[in-house]
Amino acid sequence: MTVAEQLRLEQAAFVAAVAGELTDFLGTRQLVMAGISPDIDPIMGSISNLVTGGKRLRALMCYWGWRGAGGDPAARQIVTAGSALELFQAAALIHDDIIDRSDTRRGGPSVHRRFSQLHLAQGWALDSERFGHAAGILAGDLCLSFSEEAFTDIGEQAASGSQARLIFNLMRAEVMAGQYLDILEEVAGPVRDRAGAVTRAHSIIRFKSAKYSTEHPLALGGALAGASDELLRGYSAFALPLGEAFQLRDDVLGVFGDPVTTGKPAGDDLREGKRTVLVALALDQASADESAFIDAKLGSPDLGAEDVAEIRRIIEESGALQATEVLIGEFGSAAFDALEMLPLDELPKTALRKLAEATVSRAS
Amino acid sequence: MTVAEQLRLEQAAFVAAVAGELTDFLGTRQLVMAGISPDIDPIMGSISNLVTGGKRLRALMCYWGWRGAGGDPAARQIVTAGSALELFQAAALIHDDIIDRSDTRRGGPSVHRRFSQLHLAQGWALDSERFGHAAGILAGDLCLSFSEEAFTDIGEQAASGSQARLIFNLMRAEVMAGQYLDILEEVAGPVRDRAGAVTRAHSIIRFKSAKYSTEHPLALGGALAGASDELLRGYSAFALPLGEAFQLRDDVLGVFGDPVTTGKPAGDDLREGKRTVLVALALDQASADESAFIDAKLGSPDLGAEDVAEIRRIIEESGALQATEVLIGEFGSAAFDALEMLPLDELPKTALRKLAEATVSRAS
Repeated sequence: MTVAEQLRLEQAAFVAAVAGELTDFLGTRQLVMAGISPDIDPIMGSISNLVTGGKRLRALMCYWGWRGAGGDPAARQIVTAGSALELFQAAALIHDDIIDRSDTRRGGPSVHRRFSQLHLAQGWALDSERFGHAAGILAGDLCLSFSEEAFTDIGEQAASGSQARLIFNLMRAEVMAGQYLDILEEVAGPVRDRAGAVTRAHSIIRFKSAKYSTEHPLALGGALAGASDELLRGYSAFALPLGEAFQLRDDVLGVFGDPVTTGKPAGDDLREGKRTVLVALALDQASADESAFIDAKLGSPDLGAEDVAEIRRIIEESGALQATEVLIGEFGSAAFDALEMLPLDELPKTALRKLAEATVSRAS
Repeated sequence: MTVAEQLRLEQAAFVAAVAGELTDFLGTRQLVMAGISPDIDPIMGSISNLVTGGKRLRALMCYWGWRGAGGDPAARQIVTAGSALELFQAAALIHDDIIDRSDTRRGGPSVHRRFSQLHLAQGWALDSERFGHAAGILAGDLCLSFSEEAFTDIGEQAASGSQARLIFNLMRAEVMAGQYLDILEEVAGPVRDRAGAVTRAHSIIRFKSAKYSTEHPLALGGALAGASDELLRGYSAFALPLGEAFQLRDDVLGVFGDPVTTGKPAGDDLREGKRTVLVALALDQASADESAFIDAKLGSPDLGAEDVAEIRRIIEESGALQATEVLIGEFGSAAFDALEMLPLDELPKTALRKLAEATVSRAS
């Protein structure tokens, strides 16, 4: 069997095991909830629906971090850790979509939108939007609690004081802090010094995305397998720039992405008012009039197709798109260079290389 | 030293220990957050502010559940468990106030309101309300994660599979389910069968409040001290009706309470559209016109003082207030009877009796 074949089989087995564990986990919780009231079914359904899809980037990072540190491919703990990460990601997405007022997720309605639609369809009283947001907040809270239950189920290796627990705790706190800095920049960015905007945008992607999506999951898998501090440092040197490239790519897709592949409306990031590195660079490099135009339009919920097209033009012609692509290339290179330095067997190294390639060059 | 003196000293020592542990806990997290950005200070400040106050009902239930089962008054674990419960309660309050659009909490602005005020004061861009809600969602998520970190810090007695962990997990899931049933009843109640409304309202208070506020905290303390199944059943027989009386009292205060003592505007529950047992009884027992009046006004954000006065009149004259007071009396009696049956030493029994008295007859 070639390494490529072995990789494909092993990764498919892990993804299937995580899916199976998530189904079992949510099945047992569904029984508890059904005992309270069948009215709770839509909450459980919204969580199940969300953890069924996705690229499983965080679970896979965790898995290969585990394998790279000598973890057994058939061990239960790593499947449980992957499930916990997927549940955490689902919780984050549910609340994120409320915060960003995103109506769609992976081409379907977002969770709070599902509940406002349910409200409308049932002809219930009072306000549909408000009900949707309230139900979404609770669904996210429940899913966040579930992720913790799953993480605790790993057992002793994730007990209080363990390195894995420290990483999981730090991951949660940092991503929440990063998300707050992200929404703060949306509102405070326009009145803060423009010179610092690119630096602030960089810091945001590090905490809300890079550390959360790649660095911590990889380290978590490593820590669970008892990786040395040196290996964990090597993992960071690879995964942190990879995560930065991942988020910069996400920012480009948020403005220039094809709605068919991203599952999000065109220019959604602009409508949400995200002050990404891409946007900060454009504001810095465009003419005063053009910058004022972006400032005036950013975060406007009724931003039209023409406005999106004009902002895209400014971002392109200012050189900000090009500069961002250069950054993606640089962070990507830093990640790939660090990967080659890692003392890993061929299988995990190949797996991480393929994950990294997919992450940096993805279209959705 | 009399039992009353001993009780006062021991309870004050525990409350002080929980306050100290919460300060230390949040202090170490504040260091991590300050390392990310000083911009996160208001998030940490809002959490600290919320865990500083309150009646510590859940922590005290947990403590006396522990002491009743023979737990050491000086043990670290019970202080940590109390802190975890207080952090969980703070998280629940932060999200609750967003869901209920409550602008005040304990006489001051609620967390999301603090952030919308910060937005206004700083002259930031875009929408103050929206920023407040988004920041409140993230502050609640962070606080929810903190409660879990604290709970895990209990150590082995709270590890995966332990009875304490099962209770904590069930408590979280049930309160979230109960809160969903609560907001569902606000919107679906008017179009659902009126005959079942009182039963539905009862089920809601059981899950969102009674199990959460009294039954599970008491059981948690007992489980941590290794209580027998029999003692835990006895605890439930006391704490579940107590919690029901507690919430029924809360419902009465939500309509008839004095804003000066409750720290909430008069008739706040009516403005939020809460379909409590009190309201369900009134809808059932009032005339058709009066019921239609309540239905039309419930959940109206601009409900005025005259409307509140009229609904109060209907609730009183329909006999719903009287019936609710009778229920509070009955649940209270059931709780006190069960308490006397419990095989506890005089100190914990006296403590639980005093807690129960304060809970049933409170004015805020």
